[in-house]
This record gives sequence, structure tokens and C-alpha cells, in this order.
Amino acid sequence: MQLNTRIVLVGTTHPGNIGSAARAMKTMGLHDLVLVSPRHPPDDEARARASGADDVLAGARIVDSLDEAIADCELVVGASARTRRLGAEPVGPREAVNQVMALPDGARAALLFGRERTGLTNEELDRCHRLLHIPANPDYSSLNIAAAVQVMCYELRMAAIDGALPETGGRNQPYATAGELEQLYDHFEQVLLEIGFLDPNNPRQLMRRIRRFFARATPDRNEVNIFRGILSAVEGRGSAPRRRRDRE
Amino acid sequence: MQLNTRIVLVGTTHPGNIGSAARAMKTMGLHDLVLVSPRHPPDDEARARASGADDVLAGARIVDSLDEAIADCELVVGASARTRRLGAEPVGPREAVNQVMALPDGARAALLFGRERTGLTNEELDRCHRLLHIPANPDYSSLNIAAAVQVMCYELRMAAIDGALPETGGRNQPYATAGELEQLYDHFEQVLLEIGFLDPNNPRQLMRRIRRFFARATPDRNEVNIFRGILSAVEGRGSAPRRRRDRE
Repeated sequence: MQLNTRIVLVGTTHPGNIGSAARAMKTMGLHDLVLVSPRHPPDDEARARASGADDVLAGARIVDSLDEAIADCELVVGASARTRRLGAEPVGPREAVNQVMALPDGARAALLFGRERTGLTNEELDRCHRLLHIPANPDYSSLNIAAAVQVMCYELRMAAIDGALPETGGRNQPYATAGELEQLYDHFEQVLLEIGFLDPNNPRQLMRRIRRFFARATPDRNEVNIFRGILSAVEGRGSAPRRRRDRE
Repeated sequence: MQLNTRIVLVGTTHPGNIGSAARAMKTMGLHDLVLVSPRHPPDDEARARASGADDVLAGARIVDSLDEAIADCELVVGASARTRRLGAEPVGPREAVNQVMALPDGARAALLFGRERTGLTNEELDRCHRLLHIPANPDYSSLNIAAAVQVMCYELRMAAIDGALPETGGRNQPYATAGELEQLYDHFEQVLLEIGFLDPNNPRQLMRRIRRFFARATPDRNEVNIFRGILSAVEGRGSAPRRRRDRE
């Protein structure tokens, strides 16, 4: 369901913005809020801005790392005003929501919103399957965080109540979670180092390109297992088929 | 044009909300703001909230009556959480924007937003051609004024750029051709056989799954080259880094 989408605020500076974001969420029927290392925890200003959405604010989880916030999410979409040469695929708000709707039952998406001044770091954007670009006025694209959250929660609600919208995918395997993908990337990197394809002294953008490719495909768990199996077979090459079978 | 749409705030109590509304407007490319009898004129709080949209705030007209605010407008749409038995036709955000877009050239629409607590009066709603209903959470429909303005200005902008901007996109590498993908799959299969991961006597659906995965990602030529390079490195493993470099 679209309304179980998690809103993740990363490194927010002003607690008032957290409160306003909670209010924006609840007006559209969302409730799952995670705060990654906020500068200050929610305070009176945050609660005042949350208004009647203080339950969403009170229920917000505060975590230390982005990985912790998204580990169980199958689709991670990061808001970014910038486009990056090697980033994940950029999508507009409606395309992002379509992709949330195409998730299998029980899967969960996370929408990430970065710091007020600087947004999400490149390392944080590397965790994203998609980059969200809200098409703002090029001469003044400075959406307040709560305004961006409002727009996206509104789009999610519009999609949720437009029950007629067809499921695009037809994919019935559970998607891999962000945590499972991180394990795949780690394994991939280790094998690429081992076979000498990745030069640790000159990594160029290889791992970022591989991330982008896999993120675009939003692999299911079975596919991740296939790649993990292939990587294990490459590692174990020459040793024995036994080892491979252990991994299967 | 949709972006010449006027935003009319009627009887606003908190100047901060006026500033936030100005910011919401400018982020989406709107600039025509009219304030009908605000409780307080825009002040420092309003300017702080307007942030870089202080020009929109400074350009706002302040008038004494709603009639004065909308006299030159061909379509007047009033936001209202209530429905009225005898009111104007209720429309959702997208239908409202469609009707704005259907106006003849040079015509102007006004979107009206009422007081924080009490909204628009019945007399004010009687001035409207349409009643705008933003489909919020029935258990908590309390959109802040600036949030409602943000949602509507966003919808106007989306309509304005519709057709001009691809929703997805951003990929500038040429996609791999079907022929290049076939070569990749052949190479992949050969390596999977070589490392013993693919059993020719029991191939199951492995290659089909790999095809489906790659097809879903619609790889570009560069990505195909990376995977071909990795496959060559696996084949050449133990022989020499020289060979890998040849393939790159």
C-alpha cells in the first residue's frame, strides 16, 4: 500500500520542520516517520507545528544511520534538487509514486528528504534506487522540507484513492530490501577486487555504476540470490563445486 | 496560462502563513498574490518564512473585499473542507487545474484560501465558480494554508510543464541494442558454464531469469561493456591482467 510509505528525514536542522512534515504526512494518511540524526530531537516548536499530528511525531523513530532507517525497504527514493552524472535514475513525483504502487503487497518504500541547506550527501544518494526531482521553478526551487513532504504525500494519497490505477509490474516475487542489496554490493566489490577487475588505487566510479544499474532494475530477492550464488561460484572457483552448493 | 493564476488569501490570521504561502507560490512559478483583509499585514515573521520569495510577498496587493480581489478573474475556485448542499460544483485538485487550463488565452483564475480556523464564509463561497476539495485524510484533514497553496501551485506547475518535460529520463548514454544484449547473454552463459554455476544437464530457468533481470534495467552500452569486462576478467582469472585491459 502507498500509505505505508516511510518518510525519512535525514539530518534535519530545524525541529519545526519535523513537526510540519509530520502534519503534512497525517493530512494525507501517512504515519511512518523516521529521523536520521536530526540536529535536535523534536521539541515544543516541533509539537506546535505538528498540531493534531503529534501522534505521528511521537511515534517517529530516531536512528543514527540511514542504513538503519531503510534496511527493510524495497524501494528507496531520495529527493534531490541536483542531477548527478552517475546517480540513480531521476524520476518526477508521479513516476516515483507509480513505482511505489507497483511494489508487491507487503513491500515498503522510503522517501528520503535531506538537510535544509545541503540536502542528501552523495553517499546517501548512493543508497537510493531512484532520485526524486520535484519540478520546481528553476529560478527559485527552494521547497521547504515540509512542503516537499506535503507534495509527495499528497501524490501518494491521490494514487491511493484512485483505486482504478493499474498495477504496472506483474512481478510477484518479493523485492530485495535495501539491506540485502548492500550485502550484494559488498560481495560484488570483494569479488571484483579478488579477480583484479576493480583496482583499489583507481576505483573510478565502478561500484557506483554497478549500484545504479542494480537499483534501476529493483531486483527481487530471488535475483539477488542468483547473483550472490554466481559471486560465490567465482570466489570458490578452482576450489570445489561443494562450496558453491553450500551457498545455494 | 496556469502560472498567472492568482492566489487569494482571505482573512489570514498568522502573517507567517502568508510568508509560507508566498514561498510555496514562487517555488512553483506563481507570483500573483492578493490578501483580503489579513488580520495583520505581512511582518518580519512573514518575510522570514517567505525566504527568497520576499518579492512575491512585497508585491502582494492588500484589499478590503473579496470582490475587489477577484473582479478581473474568469474562474474563481474556493478551497473548502465542507461540502454544501447548495454550493458551487465541488472539484478535486486536478479537475480544478484542468478547468484553469481550459480557460481562453488571457483569462485568469483565482484560487481562494480562507481563514486558518474557519475557512471561507458561505457568502465568500457564493462568489466561487467551483469548490475545491483537497482529498485529505478524513480523520485529520487539517492542511495548513501554505500546504494547501503548495499542493495547488504544484498541480498548476505540473500541468504547465506537462508535455514539455519527460517524467523519467535523465539517462544520456545510448541504450544497448538487442544485438549487444544477446552477445552479453552468450558471454554470461559461457562463463557460468565455465565456473560450474550453470549445469548444462539441469539449466533450470537460470538464463531466462538473467535475461529478464537485464531487460528490466534496460542497460546502456557502457553498462553492457562493464559486465562484459567483468565476465572477461572471470574467464581470464589467473592468466593476466593484460587480457582484461584488452577488453576494456
